[in-house]
Amino acid sequence: MENFIFHNPTRIVFGEGVIDQVGEQTRPHGGKVLLVYGRNSIKANGIYDRITTSLVGAGLEIVEFSGVKPNPVLSHLRQGIELAKKERPDCLVAVGGGSVLDEAKAIAAGAVTDIDVWDFFTGKATIEKALPLVTVLTVAATGSEMNPTGVVTNEETLQKFEISAPPLYPRTSLLDPTVLYTLSSDYTAYSCVDVISHVIEAYFTAETRHTPIQDRLVENIIVSVMESCETCLEDPHSYQGRATFMWAATLALNGLPVAGVGSFSFPNHMIEHSLSAIYDIAHGAGLAIVIPGWMSYTAEKSPEKFARFGREIFGIQGNSETQLAHEAIQRLKSWFAKIGAPVSLEEAGIPASDIPAIAENASMLARKWGLDAYTVDEIATVLNHCK
Amino acid sequence: MENFIFHNPTRIVFGEGVIDQVGEQTRPHGGKVLLVYGRNSIKANGIYDRITTSLVGAGLEIVEFSGVKPNPVLSHLRQGIELAKKERPDCLVAVGGGSVLDEAKAIAAGAVTDIDVWDFFTGKATIEKALPLVTVLTVAATGSEMNPTGVVTNEETLQKFEISAPPLYPRTSLLDPTVLYTLSSDYTAYSCVDVISHVIEAYFTAETRHTPIQDRLVENIIVSVMESCETCLEDPHSYQGRATFMWAATLALNGLPVAGVGSFSFPNHMIEHSLSAIYDIAHGAGLAIVIPGWMSYTAEKSPEKFARFGREIFGIQGNSETQLAHEAIQRLKSWFAKIGAPVSLEEAGIPASDIPAIAENASMLARKWGLDAYTVDEIATVLNHCK
Repeated sequence: MENFIFHNPTRIVFGEGVIDQVGEQTRPHGGKVLLVYGRNSIKANGIYDRITTSLVGAGLEIVEFSGVKPNPVLSHLRQGIELAKKERPDCLVAVGGGSVLDEAKAIAAGAVTDIDVWDFFTGKATIEKALPLVTVLTVAATGSEMNPTGVVTNEETLQKFEISAPPLYPRTSLLDPTVLYTLSSDYTAYSCVDVISHVIEAYFTAETRHTPIQDRLVENIIVSVMESCETCLEDPHSYQGRATFMWAATLALNGLPVAGVGSFSFPNHMIEHSLSAIYDIAHGAGLAIVIPGWMSYTAEKSPEKFARFGREIFGIQGNSETQLAHEAIQRLKSWFAKIGAPVSLEEAGIPASDIPAIAENASMLARKWGLDAYTVDEIATVLNHCK
Repeated sequence: MENFIFHNPTRIVFGEGVIDQVGEQTRPHGGKVLLVYGRNSIKANGIYDRITTSLVGAGLEIVEFSGVKPNPVLSHLRQGIELAKKERPDCLVAVGGGSVLDEAKAIAAGAVTDIDVWDFFTGKATIEKALPLVTVLTVAATGSEMNPTGVVTNEETLQKFEISAPPLYPRTSLLDPTVLYTLSSDYTAYSCVDVISHVIEAYFTAETRHTPIQDRLVENIIVSVMESCETCLEDPHSYQGRATFMWAATLALNGLPVAGVGSFSFPNHMIEHSLSAIYDIAHGAGLAIVIPGWMSYTAEKSPEKFARFGREIFGIQGNSETQLAHEAIQRLKSWFAKIGAPVSLEEAGIPASDIPAIAENASMLARKWGLDAYTVDEIATVLNHCK
């Protein structure tokens, strides 16, 4: 185990009906709220009414900022910061999935400074403070509800970059599994892939070998999210299915699975970021394409951890680590296909002839993240495993 | 899964050499420190010098309060509060095992109020605030370093009661596995039993049946602490062994394994409290006697979870749940014996003729904890399984 600091101050309020507590949970942070959300879906399903009723009931003044896109973009983020600077709310309430939460974090940071917000994403400036943020999760996938990270795309430069700083931990996140009942099968599946992606990056790329608690926690999250995903696809109104799914998604990226594993990298996210930056593809769908390809590419060199993955996740047995690794990857790919996620570039309508351009784009992020081994050629090799 | 709130704001600083950071980690909480510790062991092993050097190096003024007993007592706690009120430190640094941390929490609460501290233990008063507490752990077992709970004995009334309130979460806990190198084999084994006891109470007694993430986390902690205990007994200076052990101990009682499991009870702790109150026996040793007996008693009525325990912890297979449960309990008992813990009353020199008196004593705690099913007769039946 490597030395680490673990400090996650977010308060999780979890369970049936908890979204009606948003007023009382927000009240300690001030009297005026910037309510951030996406499109009209929360109006159609009644969540908007419940949130505003609770906020108004707690005596809070609401300023609204809507229209956050599924992959949040810088131009919209800038509008949010402008509004926040004009209205001067005491805190933010973000209602939505990871995109809404991510953009709200960036608004919270940008609202209290004259530094240009994109400088936080490029690393030119450091986030020292932010407005308090309360979140109400409507899609369980990104883990943004219990971490200090947000991803936004600069649509002019096609850069999908992230911010991460302690002031961005949500103060409180309200997780109500029943709001997931209306989530489509497609997005349930994509979300599941996303959750798996969050834990496997460190699991497969960390150099530290002796992390038994962390490895088992990752395997726990993967098995639990796969089981509960199947339950939710069969019965979208399964409370236990949605609850297990939602909690697994939060734990996957709250820092605990990686505490003590030392340095690791995000090669799958690096490559997928380019897919969803260039094409109109859901993040989870992009990951379902990239992950089995990256795993095959990587297992060719060192199959051991992939063999363990096969034993622990799929219960497969055998003597050859190489053979086990190969079978584990095929099992995962088949399972992604079974739940309705695309598992090849072709399936997503992305021609193999685009691979050089995708690789070129991804290499920008590889340089930003210090993934020196991932040259344009290497990324293209990975992508060839994803055809 | 049941509704829950999870909020654990303690910062964990984990790893080799981190105790030398105590000065910088404490500095944000003020300039004057009340340093709380037990007997002279931290002077003999050099930890005292490292702590004071680090505190002084960070420009902190130190007031010392030593002599905390292994089972901390109210009279000493009162002395600590008196000293704190006289010296008015900005914060506390507790260096020791669970006892030192527990008493320090109570001093932190008692120092900032005129309410008599014992009123917090009896429930007459509620803890609203406390001085900030930084801890340096020298024994990994109780989990006190990442929870808001403390146990103190009123030696006049022979009441061993607890406090638990959000202001008591340590601000920062420094966990350095190398300080465990000198822990004896006996106490390594007893600590391991203690860690197992912290997770199995909810695992076996919670009524909620659908908690797959929590169940797997408990199994993870048990397997990890058993494996690492064996490593530490073989090689007391195994860094990886001590590190895994230490982190497992912290996770066992930081609230995460029980988040979502609903209500549960502590029957093993209830019975063990009487053993260590009446006889001179270490808490972990008492638990090693009680746990297999309580498991046998309980598995007679509902063997299912015990069968699962056998499959997941010991990898045993079979069709009969009853048979699997029986074998699982025997395996655990044998394993306790193997690491050097006593597994019967007889082994601890406690005659079977004492059972009625022990049961009588334990039934007082059963009533306090609302464990109505545990009448004197029922407790005696459990104890007959421990002979």
